[in-house]
Amino acid sequence: MGEAVLVAGASGFAGALAARLIDRHPHFELAGVTSRSDAGRRLDDLYPHHRVAAVLEELDLDRHGDADAAIVAYPHGASAPVVAALRERGVRVVDLSADFRLRDVGTYEEWYVEHPHPELLDDAVYGLPELYRERLRGAGLVAGPGCFPTAAILALAPLARAGLIADVVIDAKTGVSGAGRAANERTHFVSVTENVVPYGVARHRHTPEIDQELAALGNAVAVTFVPHLLPIDQGELLSCYVTVDGGARGDLRALYARAYDGEPFVEVVERPPGVREVRETNLCRMHVAEDPRTGKVLVFAAIDNLWKGTASQAVQALNLMCGRPEAEGLPA
Amino acid sequence: MGEAVLVAGASGFAGALAARLIDRHPHFELAGVTSRSDAGRRLDDLYPHHRVAAVLEELDLDRHGDADAAIVAYPHGASAPVVAALRERGVRVVDLSADFRLRDVGTYEEWYVEHPHPELLDDAVYGLPELYRERLRGAGLVAGPGCFPTAAILALAPLARAGLIADVVIDAKTGVSGAGRAANERTHFVSVTENVVPYGVARHRHTPEIDQELAALGNAVAVTFVPHLLPIDQGELLSCYVTVDGGARGDLRALYARAYDGEPFVEVVERPPGVREVRETNLCRMHVAEDPRTGKVLVFAAIDNLWKGTASQAVQALNLMCGRPEAEGLPA
Amino acid sequence: MGEAVLVAGASGFAGALAARLIDRHPHFELAGVTSRSDAGRRLDDLYPHHRVAAVLEELDLDRHGDADAAIVAYPHGASAPVVAALRERGVRVVDLSADFRLRDVGTYEEWYVEHPHPELLDDAVYGLPELYRERLRGAGLVAGPGCFPTAAILALAPLARAGLIADVVIDAKTGVSGAGRAANERTHFVSVTENVVPYGVARHRHTPEIDQELAALGNAVAVTFVPHLLPIDQGELLSCYVTVDGGARGDLRALYARAYDGEPFVEVVERPPGVREVRETNLCRMHVAEDPRTGKVLVFAAIDNLWKGTASQAVQALNLMCGRPEAEGLPA
Amino acid sequence: MGEAVLVAGASGFAGALAARLIDRHPHFELAGVTSRSDAGRRLDDLYPHHRVAAVLEELDLDRHGDADAAIVAYPHGASAPVVAALRERGVRVVDLSADFRLRDVGTYEEWYVEHPHPELLDDAVYGLPELYRERLRGAGLVAGPGCFPTAAILALAPLARAGLIADVVIDAKTGVSGAGRAANERTHFVSVTENVVPYGVARHRHTPEIDQELAALGNAVAVTFVPHLLPIDQGELLSCYVTVDGGARGDLRALYARAYDGEPFVEVVERPPGVREVRETNLCRMHVAEDPRTGKVLVFAAIDNLWKGTASQAVQALNLMCGRPEAEGLPA
Repeated sequence: MGEAVLVAGASGFAGALAARLIDRHPHFELAGVTSRSDAGRRLDDLYPHHRVAAVLEELDLDRHGDADAAIVAYPHGASAPVVAALRERGVRVVDLSADFRLRDVGTYEEWYVEHPHPELLDDAVYGLPELYRERLRGAGLVAGPGCFPTAAILALAPLARAGLIADVVIDAKTGVSGAGRAANERTHFVSVTENVVPYGVARHRHTPEIDQELAALGNAVAVTFVPHLLPIDQGELLSCYVTVDGGARGDLRALYARAYDGEPFVEVVERPPGVREVRETNLCRMHVAEDPRTGKVLVFAAIDNLWKGTASQAVQALNLMCGRPEAEGLPA
Repeated sequence: MGEAVLVAGASGFAGALAARLIDRHPHFELAGVTSRSDAGRRLDDLYPHHRVAAVLEELDLDRHGDADAAIVAYPHGASAPVVAALRERGVRVVDLSADFRLRDVGTYEEWYVEHPHPELLDDAVYGLPELYRERLRGAGLVAGPGCFPTAAILALAPLARAGLIADVVIDAKTGVSGAGRAANERTHFVSVTENVVPYGVARHRHTPEIDQELAALGNAVAVTFVPHLLPIDQGELLSCYVTVDGGARGDLRALYARAYDGEPFVEVVERPPGVREVRETNLCRMHVAEDPRTGKVLVFAAIDNLWKGTASQAVQALNLMCGRPEAEGLPA
Repeated sequence: MGEAVLVAGASGFAGALAARLIDRHPHFELAGVTSRSDAGRRLDDLYPHHRVAAVLEELDLDRHGDADAAIVAYPHGASAPVVAALRERGVRVVDLSADFRLRDVGTYEEWYVEHPHPELLDDAVYGLPELYRERLRGAGLVAGPGCFPTAAILALAPLARAGLIADVVIDAKTGVSGAGRAANERTHFVSVTENVVPYGVARHRHTPEIDQELAALGNAVAVTFVPHLLPIDQGELLSCYVTVDGGARGDLRALYARAYDGEPFVEVVERPPGVREVRETNLCRMHVAEDPRTGKVLVFAAIDNLWKGTASQAVQALNLMCGRPEAEGLPA
Repeated sequence: MGEAVLVAGASGFAGALAARLIDRHPHFELAGVTSRSDAGRRLDDLYPHHRVAAVLEELDLDRHGDADAAIVAYPHGASAPVVAALRERGVRVVDLSADFRLRDVGTYEEWYVEHPHPELLDDAVYGLPELYRERLRGAGLVAGPGCFPTAAILALAPLARAGLIADVVIDAKTGVSGAGRAANERTHFVSVTENVVPYGVARHRHTPEIDQELAALGNAVAVTFVPHLLPIDQGELLSCYVTVDGGARGDLRALYARAYDGEPFVEVVERPPGVREVRETNLCRMHVAEDPRTGKVLVFAAIDNLWKGTASQAVQALNLMCGRPEAEGLPA
């Protein structure tokens, strides 16, 4: 029998997909699905295409605390207390909120809210397997990266490790599912179709997360990051424009090939990728080029924001936490 | 009776819209519509929503050369000979191809083909009224700007005039009509929907045109420019990321307000614009902001690629060429 | 000076468009725009593309009751009391709700709610100019038809007048703007894109309205009507499948040509129309055909649900009510 | 080792998906992929998201004729000769063209072209497993049903078996992939987006196929069938409006529940289905209702036109032909 995995907050887009992936996983068992807003509804009524035959419940720690592991898909601030309670009961947790992504509590509080459980920050591992694979094995608490940071960090890591990034502009294009299930003026079909609009200009909360990880790779730099909302449902394309330091940058393609050789979920390709190529997969596809006129290095990275950007990456991390093969349950 | 205006190449998206705008113009008269590929078809059969009751003809210089003015919507290279023949007959011409946009014939030939009529380059005025209004009055030959340069130059002109641009990344997002009426793998609905993909990376032909005009404003710089294809039909959003020189940049909003105060078709707005706000208008809407973390200046500019980016801007220019009110026939 | 026209309920899609059309009308003047939910906001902030520089206010009958005419865009049930109050002050009213569409109060109450002002029903003229042109001239109270009935009745009127309809299935396809501005699970972009779904199966409230008008034309029949929600914002296509009585139906195209000859806003065309052909117009385009295998008569009718289906048709009616040219202020 | 399966015509949408399904199948092996137009190209270059690492070849019967089975995705008329040649070599074939769907050669020639191999018609089994399961076991030649007939026949079979259909209107809505990979004016993104348009009115070639199968079920009737093109890529919704004979139709839901109880790929559901619910699955989801006002029976059926409508249904049939479990290799 495999580990029993709870999905808390399963009525949102990310939580529902996590529930589906666990439900189909050859090893894990879905221990339950909870929701604050939709308890009592069937998950396959809310999301027919996921085909998960389960009823959403209120979270009940006495009962759900028996799970071996949990994926928590709560909003930031609301997540940390649930995570703390689950950890206390010995449950391994992948948290999909921002609550444990920023290692510096001051930075978190500057961009978000007062942190409810700063004492857990030191235990949390940043859930990007391509960077933290060894630390994820056996970990108890994992902070699932933001969708934009996932693509941005994978796109820039080879340059950052070589200390080549003097300056970088990250222009992101994302589908509407990234804005979540909440229906509002911004997510109304009529607002989105035949439109494209920048948002969170120069103040999107994923910015410090990208900075943090580039610095951790040895290349401290303040990134310029602007996301744009597109009329697509899933998918995210990041266009990174890098000013490189000094001269000797060597062979870019070789640098990227070396960096991701053997990675099961990163593909370096010969043409700029479109987001449809990675839809409903755990893949990050990227292309690197150089502008011969300006010397800038351009990196384009495509992911599915709900999959590699959130839910399937959480399963990838959970596999490592539980000693399973990293790609188990993730469709190639 | 107003000037008789021919539209040559009216079966493409831009030419067809130009024909509609001339057909509805309170002063100009539509002297004829020609097409190389669709002669004999009705324009309102090809484009029912334009409602132009006219039959496409083969171009016949003996007959069509009697027009007072012409808008020529031919591909680059094919356009110059037609323009030359019309000019010889004294017809005022707005050319929508790239053939007369680049003032340096060497640059043209580096990015396009051998120039068929370099002797006309000196006569051609660059058809961006916000920059060349006085030279457009009474001009005989006008080069309609590319759609991306239109938005890029309007977005950057206030900074360029002040010599502030040390470096700039221009990330463009465009609808499919920009790729023209040709049906191919790239414009097939199934390739475009739920997708976004970069193209022409670091080698799009609108790049030298942007460079040329920024230099003409006194700020020579090599721009980094990448367009992306989006699942929308009309509309174009440019996100410009500017590294500014030195310190004193002053009040950006005041700079932009001053630059465009009184301009009938440029609006500086308080929020980043979406392309739907300018759909089917001759407007360019822009927003300027500063990233306090990186010091970068961000300018977002939205136009309708077929209107301000091509056909309605051509009418704006033609109004000036013929001594008409600049906004005549252009819906506010 | 033209008549001063109030638009009450101008924060919804239909009301906002009505405000724009009145604002641009060469004769009418926009006397004010009111909203229950968004008083205090600027209309051009809510709907930038409409470019109506006006602030939404709370409805104040003492002040707004001075208008010469009003277009009321309130939900059914809420509309009748406002209409009654305006009529009492002598204001001519076009009501866009369902409150005065059904002449039989019993039918209204069966499909909607208890009628707040049944005493006004006898005064109301059904606002479909192609059927009630003469009664609309000088009318004081007009019930703007539902969007589906507008297209359905225009599509079927020639057959109904000839008493030919033995049975009819109306399959409607509509854009999301027909569902209104309310953001909910159904109008969320992610629910709509790449989807098509039937709704209101066999119980949509526009059904008795279609029945009523076919009967008024002399052809009482219970229609089968099912609308479907499509991933488009504006536009509505009705596919009508008519079983005709007996044999002699004569020449269908001649029947339709005769019926709509001279109508400024109805076009009978040779090919089945797409909704894009009529987008942002007051036109209804239709095509009639016969299935030689089954003898069924097929009529396809396309309108823009917000224009001919609601707001521009209201202006067409208001023109007649106020003795203006019927097409005034409506872009051809 | 499983059977080696050739996919001939793998560069089109249906053939490419068939190749992917065979490539991932736990039992079958992909013996080769051929293409008349794209030989030499990699399939994963043409369709990156299918991730089939194979090079398209010219069909070579000497070599490809060694396969155990083949899925042939050629246009009608061109398919029959290839099928005949493969059959001669003893290869089991599922043909996705129309060439073997119509059992009456006269009907085929009335709607298509002269039949190149009428002698094979008697051997062909109509590849709808829900109707012909037993005959498919061990069959040598299977005619894959058209996408519209698949949904139409499944939707109407329970009524047809009971002889209840006196008359039926089938209004179909389909995504653009149904029009195939050919890029033309009709499939250009700009023609499709924000549009919906009827096509093939009263003369679509799937009509006689639906008639044939309803008659085979004992309910001869001439159907009225009109498809409509929608701005979605995959998915097909059929709305069937049935006039039922006489009175006693009994309990419709029970009738449908009985008909499809135990069917692995047909689901009768409580709400009208949207096409997204079945996207990328082999499922047909349907809903049956009655219009109490008119007595009509309404059946709504949703499939993915490329999956259950074509390629995955071909694999379902091939499983039966080769004695494999019917659902093998088809994601639930």
